[in-house]
Amino acid sequence: MHAVQAVEQGTLGQAIADRLVELAAVSDEPGSLTRLYLGPAHRTAADLVAKWMREAGMTTRIDALGSVVGRYRARDSGPLTLILGSHIDTVRDAGRFDGALGVILAIEVVKAAFKSGTRFPFAIEVVAFGDEEGVRFASTLGGSKALAGRFDFKSLDETGDDGVSRRQALKAFGTDPSRLSEEALSPDQALGYVEVHIEQGPVLEQEGLPVGIVTAIDGVTRGTVEVDGVAGHAGTVPMPMRKDALAAAAEMLLAIEARARSQSNLVATVGKIEVPGSAANTIPGRVRFTLDIRSPSDQERSNAVDDINKAIAAIAQRRGVTAQLAVGHEVPAALCDRRLSDQLAKVVEAMQIKPRRLPSGAGHDAMAFDKVIPFAMLFVRCRGGVSHNPAEFASPDDIDIAARALSAFLDGITSP
Amino acid sequence: MHAVQAVEQGTLGQAIADRLVELAAVSDEPGSLTRLYLGPAHRTAADLVAKWMREAGMTTRIDALGSVVGRYRARDSGPLTLILGSHIDTVRDAGRFDGALGVILAIEVVKAAFKSGTRFPFAIEVVAFGDEEGVRFASTLGGSKALAGRFDFKSLDETGDDGVSRRQALKAFGTDPSRLSEEALSPDQALGYVEVHIEQGPVLEQEGLPVGIVTAIDGVTRGTVEVDGVAGHAGTVPMPMRKDALAAAAEMLLAIEARARSQSNLVATVGKIEVPGSAANTIPGRVRFTLDIRSPSDQERSNAVDDINKAIAAIAQRRGVTAQLAVGHEVPAALCDRRLSDQLAKVVEAMQIKPRRLPSGAGHDAMAFDKVIPFAMLFVRCRGGVSHNPAEFASPDDIDIAARALSAFLDGITSP
Repeated sequence: MHAVQAVEQGTLGQAIADRLVELAAVSDEPGSLTRLYLGPAHRTAADLVAKWMREAGMTTRIDALGSVVGRYRARDSGPLTLILGSHIDTVRDAGRFDGALGVILAIEVVKAAFKSGTRFPFAIEVVAFGDEEGVRFASTLGGSKALAGRFDFKSLDETGDDGVSRRQALKAFGTDPSRLSEEALSPDQALGYVEVHIEQGPVLEQEGLPVGIVTAIDGVTRGTVEVDGVAGHAGTVPMPMRKDALAAAAEMLLAIEARARSQSNLVATVGKIEVPGSAANTIPGRVRFTLDIRSPSDQERSNAVDDINKAIAAIAQRRGVTAQLAVGHEVPAALCDRRLSDQLAKVVEAMQIKPRRLPSGAGHDAMAFDKVIPFAMLFVRCRGGVSHNPAEFASPDDIDIAARALSAFLDGITSP
Repeated sequence: MHAVQAVEQGTLGQAIADRLVELAAVSDEPGSLTRLYLGPAHRTAADLVAKWMREAGMTTRIDALGSVVGRYRARDSGPLTLILGSHIDTVRDAGRFDGALGVILAIEVVKAAFKSGTRFPFAIEVVAFGDEEGVRFASTLGGSKALAGRFDFKSLDETGDDGVSRRQALKAFGTDPSRLSEEALSPDQALGYVEVHIEQGPVLEQEGLPVGIVTAIDGVTRGTVEVDGVAGHAGTVPMPMRKDALAAAAEMLLAIEARARSQSNLVATVGKIEVPGSAANTIPGRVRFTLDIRSPSDQERSNAVDDINKAIAAIAQRRGVTAQLAVGHEVPAALCDRRLSDQLAKVVEAMQIKPRRLPSGAGHDAMAFDKVIPFAMLFVRCRGGVSHNPAEFASPDDIDIAARALSAFLDGITSP
């Protein structure tokens, strides 16, 4: 039953790290890692991952959305399945850990069980999704949503920059999109979904911890604020007579930052700011900036949006400008399952590691299973919190700890 | 001697306003006013202005820089000359008052004197410069600098967007640039230079005054600030761990604004701000913004730059980012002549108008005469402070007041 414990400490982490290097060589662009959903590198990577799954004792198939599904049969013939997974598509010029770590780590943990002759009282499906990053098409999580039975069929007609629709791309990849509704799992037969992923943030590194247990995937409010003041000549309008849209926006930015700082686990970001038709000698008459607010609590996020709206209105009124937040989209928070998360915390603690709980500010395939089946996530420390960048790095030692934790987690699951 | 007083009140203002409409029809672009230095519309406008000068009793010539010079001879044969002028080039899609007002108003005031048989104890030269706006070539004030004897000969080889050099453009215009050093005035024979111009700002309108007397043309410090922080994922970096370059820049903008507000007659503007490679879901790692500081006092401007530098450094240090102001160029303030300005104030006051003194935040041809001959400027109220825009407007009544003030000013000058 203790499959990984039979493997020398560190060996598993190094094996996973090596396979991440091997997989990273599969790219649409020579010299850097870019693997877009349903592109040629994704096709090659899917086949490579399927081969690794078979070497780990799994049967494999590629589903209607291009996800690679490896099945490791249960000890007996019971219907219960635990799903492990993450994604193998990447952003452009990506790092090699984002997504791929969770897939390869799950395969290697299953392989260690297979090699030691271990079977569990439930089947394990390792799924390598291919549509997480949203680079090729506007909507994302097609593979995980199809598995969760909530695929948005309108997205089949979405086209990318190359004019090819998702439906056409799926056919070219070799799948049959007309059968995708058959991919939906049976919630009563799924024990849950567990995803290992690099943190993509600096919290674990800051606290000296190799892994952490995710509490929730943050809900997000995304919008744009337009501030309209009065343009003018930088030399001729005295300061008290100005209605400078950029100075007003600056005050709004600081109010947004202060509101987010006032609460832990709430983040607010102004990522883009534009002054249309700007010139060094012109007082800005109009400014647009983006706003991105995230929280594991929908109520706290909603309260923050309300407070920020009030602050923007007060600043605008005091400065004689107008300003309006137009909310673009909102995604509710997805709460991780308490029982699965507690079980992850228990195995981490058993390894003499403080079981740090933290929200995920970034989205993940796990979100797709919200309110369908229980899900949980284990984060792995990454250097400097850097992600979506070739400098992305998680150490073999940390990966080894995550792999041993996942293995112990599997050992600890007792089917209900 | 009281030439304008013989003209019915308001008539002169309306005549000037009518000619401004006529001149505004001379454009490089149909349907809007664009008259670039040495372009076809400038050529046509120069000839039209010269014709109006001759109708006003002046002899005319076009000098080596393309400036139109009309000379109204003195009562006797004394060598002294008073120069009146402004410019007839425009920005793209301009208003019809910027520059042209000062030229046409001077011509009409001389014409009224001519029609009434008035001569002064000095000659008057009305000059229509053509190189004030700096749209076609990078450097400006070529005509007024040549007259002041401080033309930068290197600028002859400057080329505009069309690849044509200033030297080539002058020849195509029909002038001989090799003779431009001959245009330099003799300072001991010039009584001074007086320019009437729309305010291009909102101060006179705000205070209900038709005209104002300029104290100085502001000195300018222009620079760029680059702020370097650390980029990050908008969801995964907790607020206390961020080094957000845009949030730091926002705090710097407000510090700049507060410093400028702390002192009258000082203005500071951040006109452009850029976040290279920005995205709504990325914490800005780098921000660049421009800074434009103006004051009629070089010492006060220098103090403000020092204080702003200190504020930027303190904010950067506190936020863990780096920031540096790179000064691009500095132009010292040009002080208007006390005696000429007092004389303008006296005639304005005699018209029962409060003689408001104010600095000019914008540059003008008058600057070229700084420390060469005495100069003064009379500002005319413009609607909403709007300039460099087709909506630019000064009322015929205000123009009439300015014309009567200039006429009374001429009457009041006694040659030294």
